[in-house]
Amino acid sequence: MTDPAHPVDLITEVTLRYSDLDPLGHLNNAVYATLFEAGRVDFVERELASALTPAFGFVLARIEIDFRAEGHFPGMARIETGIARIGRTSMDFDQKVTLEGRELAAARSVCVLLDLRLRAPAPWPEDARAVLKDWLGRR
Amino acid sequence: MTDPAHPVDLITEVTLRYSDLDPLGHLNNAVYATLFEAGRVDFVERELASALTPAFGFVLARIEIDFRAEGHFPGMARIETGIARIGRTSMDFDQKVTLEGRELAAARSVCVLLDLRLRAPAPWPEDARAVLKDWLGRR
Amino acid sequence: MTDPAHPVDLITEVTLRYSDLDPLGHLNNAVYATLFEAGRVDFVERELASALTPAFGFVLARIEIDFRAEGHFPGMARIETGIARIGRTSMDFDQKVTLEGRELAAARSVCVLLDLRLRAPAPWPEDARAVLKDWLGRR
Amino acid sequence: MTDPAHPVDLITEVTLRYSDLDPLGHLNNAVYATLFEAGRVDFVERELASALTPAFGFVLARIEIDFRAEGHFPGMARIETGIARIGRTSMDFDQKVTLEGRELAAARSVCVLLDLRLRAPAPWPEDARAVLKDWLGRR
Repeated sequence: MTDPAHPVDLITEVTLRYSDLDPLGHLNNAVYATLFEAGRVDFVERELASALTPAFGFVLARIEIDFRAEGHFPGMARIETGIARIGRTSMDFDQKVTLEGRELAAARSVCVLLDLRLRAPAPWPEDARAVLKDWLGRR
Repeated sequence: MTDPAHPVDLITEVTLRYSDLDPLGHLNNAVYATLFEAGRVDFVERELASALTPAFGFVLARIEIDFRAEGHFPGMARIETGIARIGRTSMDFDQKVTLEGRELAAARSVCVLLDLRLRAPAPWPEDARAVLKDWLGRR
Repeated sequence: MTDPAHPVDLITEVTLRYSDLDPLGHLNNAVYATLFEAGRVDFVERELASALTPAFGFVLARIEIDFRAEGHFPGMARIETGIARIGRTSMDFDQKVTLEGRELAAARSVCVLLDLRLRAPAPWPEDARAVLKDWLGRR
Repeated sequence: MTDPAHPVDLITEVTLRYSDLDPLGHLNNAVYATLFEAGRVDFVERELASALTPAFGFVLARIEIDFRAEGHFPGMARIETGIARIGRTSMDFDQKVTLEGRELAAARSVCVLLDLRLRAPAPWPEDARAVLKDWLGRR
């Protein structure tokens, strides 16, 4: 049973735009990369930022996207963002984009924590790792 | 006094995205063109579509944008869209983008009604003209 | 030895834009999705279009992107597009984006041939399959 | 007569992308804002950067765009950028986008020189003003 105070995924909502459409009248595939990014940025801001100093940043190392259905306009895309793996200096996001309850695309991505001063991967600070472990445990 | 059932401007809300930011950390200027377009498309869908057959389309002939303040992320942009002029085959939109009550940009644009079959400007059908006149009268 | 008349990959060049940059001054990750798309569209236009009637279209079913280095502005991105697999109704693209000789990202994607009238996957016409086989054989 | 060593406008070429297209198969209007920006950034980099320290930046205060013809894909957009006015702390750009010799859009914009430390408009340094005067004189 899902505890509403501890959801499995963090939810981010993003308004779709007319300019997201391609000549076939569907959401362009690069828009999904933007929507998944919106979800990851939201996760970092709401869940991790308080456990990290401004000396840290994130870099996307890899992303896999499966396109499941054509996205239409107008609408409010719903991005579900969960944690699927915690590494020494990285984490895997597991994400979905849905529109009116229909899954449009799913993504798995690898993000690396960066020490912005050294421009090098950094091990997770203990507080940040605790937050990630909590989210990982909900799945 | 404003009649809440007949607002002066139609309101459209659009979630800002991390990808809207430029290297200075502000909303890129082209994003405003996209936000104003979102407001115009919303106006056409909600106010004009029922008075027009699918044989009609719109083309943007001209836009003037005044940038008033730097836009930040995250946030929900609010686009206010009103009618400033009605021509024989065109109309002028008068628009504003605000973020948390602060005006970021204002735009005036000329849109032309198009007969999609003839690919030529078309005079307003009477019903559509009546809708536009009502909006123009609120200002 | 590479035969210059039969290169291993089709080359597409795309000018980078200031608006491609994110707040860190690097190419935004969604821009790579757009660049890889530019390469695939170019491949289809130059290599496959003459072997396909307008009744066919393509849909991207899956993409994996590995980000290898940060992309800077200004510059001309070079997209290398090759064929890695031919299915009954699909193909895999194998792609790279380089900038001044440096690899920025690599992608593997699955594209499905679509019968636009039936909105369903379609087996490759013989001429199109022959083109794809030729490209696959160069690797 | 135009002196080829002193052209009237600075030329910037930008590859169009499939993702620039809207559902009608034309270049989306916001893409023009991006192309005009590409021309202005190119002008600043090639003509003004050496006359300005990194303490200076630019902010776009206003833009007017006239859309003259529908833009198609694929193609290489050509942006022509000239100087139409020099103010105490600002300048007006006069620009055009053409595709295969056909004018698609024209823009007039106001850019303000910014002292990035003070976050306030700054009078033109003498060297920068001399460059702008030279370009203004060519028109």
